[in-house]
Amino acid sequence: MANAPFPVPEIWHEHRVSYGETDTMGVLYYAEYLHIFERSRNNWIRSFGVSYKAIEERGVFLPVREARCRYRRSAGYDDLVQVRTGVSQWGRASLTFLYEVYDETRLYLLAGGFTQHACVDGTGRPFPWPDWFREIFLPRPVA
Amino acid sequence: MANAPFPVPEIWHEHRVSYGETDTMGVLYYAEYLHIFERSRNNWIRSFGVSYKAIEERGVFLPVREARCRYRRSAGYDDLVQVRTGVSQWGRASLTFLYEVYDETRLYLLAGGFTQHACVDGTGRPFPWPDWFREIFLPRPVA
Amino acid sequence: MANAPFPVPEIWHEHRVSYGETDTMGVLYYAEYLHIFERSRNNWIRSFGVSYKAIEERGVFLPVREARCRYRRSAGYDDLVQVRTGVSQWGRASLTFLYEVYDETRLYLLAGGFTQHACVDGTGRPFPWPDWFREIFLPRPVA
Amino acid sequence: MANAPFPVPEIWHEHRVSYGETDTMGVLYYAEYLHIFERSRNNWIRSFGVSYKAIEERGVFLPVREARCRYRRSAGYDDLVQVRTGVSQWGRASLTFLYEVYDETRLYLLAGGFTQHACVDGTGRPFPWPDWFREIFLPRPVA
Repeated sequence: MANAPFPVPEIWHEHRVSYGETDTMGVLYYAEYLHIFERSRNNWIRSFGVSYKAIEERGVFLPVREARCRYRRSAGYDDLVQVRTGVSQWGRASLTFLYEVYDETRLYLLAGGFTQHACVDGTGRPFPWPDWFREIFLPRPVA
Repeated sequence: MANAPFPVPEIWHEHRVSYGETDTMGVLYYAEYLHIFERSRNNWIRSFGVSYKAIEERGVFLPVREARCRYRRSAGYDDLVQVRTGVSQWGRASLTFLYEVYDETRLYLLAGGFTQHACVDGTGRPFPWPDWFREIFLPRPVA
Repeated sequence: MANAPFPVPEIWHEHRVSYGETDTMGVLYYAEYLHIFERSRNNWIRSFGVSYKAIEERGVFLPVREARCRYRRSAGYDDLVQVRTGVSQWGRASLTFLYEVYDETRLYLLAGGFTQHACVDGTGRPFPWPDWFREIFLPRPVA
Repeated sequence: MANAPFPVPEIWHEHRVSYGETDTMGVLYYAEYLHIFERSRNNWIRSFGVSYKAIEERGVFLPVREARCRYRRSAGYDDLVQVRTGVSQWGRASLTFLYEVYDETRLYLLAGGFTQHACVDGTGRPFPWPDWFREIFLPRPVA
């Protein structure tokens, strides 16, 4: 993760750690990273001029199939973490978001992970990315 | 709250405080009490032989209109809090749950509060308690 | 709450409702408002040029003694709620934050509430606001 | 994960999905699984006659270094999920908990994952499992 080039396009998103997100060890609780990842991928989608909410309204849902996070250095209350996100992999009916969480200076990698999503319809049935979706996110054919 | 008789019927529910529910001050975070209240009122409903899920499936929804909590003594990680719940008030289309949160011995009152709910249908429109609901929870007329 | 003048100084804070903050009724879950209130009061404090974290480091802690929220209209996934905050009451060793949650246009009041806090030291013992604290937040004597 | 024998000793823990744990898609939100995993590993530890809280008081802390979850079938509001936990791997100063989340009947695997932990002291410095810890959890030498 340290050496491979980060996917493009990437976006950065900053998040202030709240009291409610910390635990009695004085750090950002491990499950909270998955909430922060969600905000980041929503922002990545929004950077294309559309909201994930609108995508669902058009019949594409992206449930998480797998999530992973590696925790290197902790974040504390009131820290302003910097989260970098991009799509590292596209399948016919799936995609994978990659995340890196840094400290405020963007020098120290605190954590990193990914979430893999399936493209499904309102009944949960998988189907390939529709054309309108590709036109927004994938202006060229999927390799 | 200390002196008025607790409503009947009441149920008790115990809850183990998890790491994720604590904050950096080392105590159960104040918003978590509202999650615990939810579990308690679900158990109170379930003690009548029906689940809140089944009640919703039958067309009665109980959104929260008001919530209140008073925090006296903190709870810490791994504490086994004891929560006492009952309905303190019935209206034509509303009800109020009362809660008391004790320590493991049930001697020390840690917190207390209430949630007031409206009876609404699937579109959010308020309506009076239907007969089937009253037969379960109110075997006598509402005063 | 609708007619009394809102306390000054006030700050506004916007919050995007995430998927994780909604519930199966499709709305912002009632306990999440208390997390949002926390972010708002932190911002109110920060608007004076100091963080709540620095205040704790100086020996002043503000545990919540009471919290209340009234829910009028729901907020949904991806809504950009607008939260207005100010201090409505100062005591010798306590204060009360007032909150109003609006929709994106600031026209519709979705919810409102307050949190009352005690001024305590690191051992939890209440004590009156120290001079340095007053100089920041209360340039004039407490009425 | 489906075919390899589950580690021993294992414990089972049941968890009722609350409204607050669901999201607007009507299912248990993906980050909530990590909260449930925490409860499960605490129960696994407790099955040896000691609490994780007591372990921390004795100077051993188990921060999460990596967490992973695979989501196969969703869980809904009020479902009574069954969580199976055991330690799949012991290192000199680390361990890995394995989790399987089933439906109420224990027939359908809903999700599975692991959390890997380091053994660290109160300052966060890693150190090998102390003798008293091994006597409780590892009556035989680590392979």
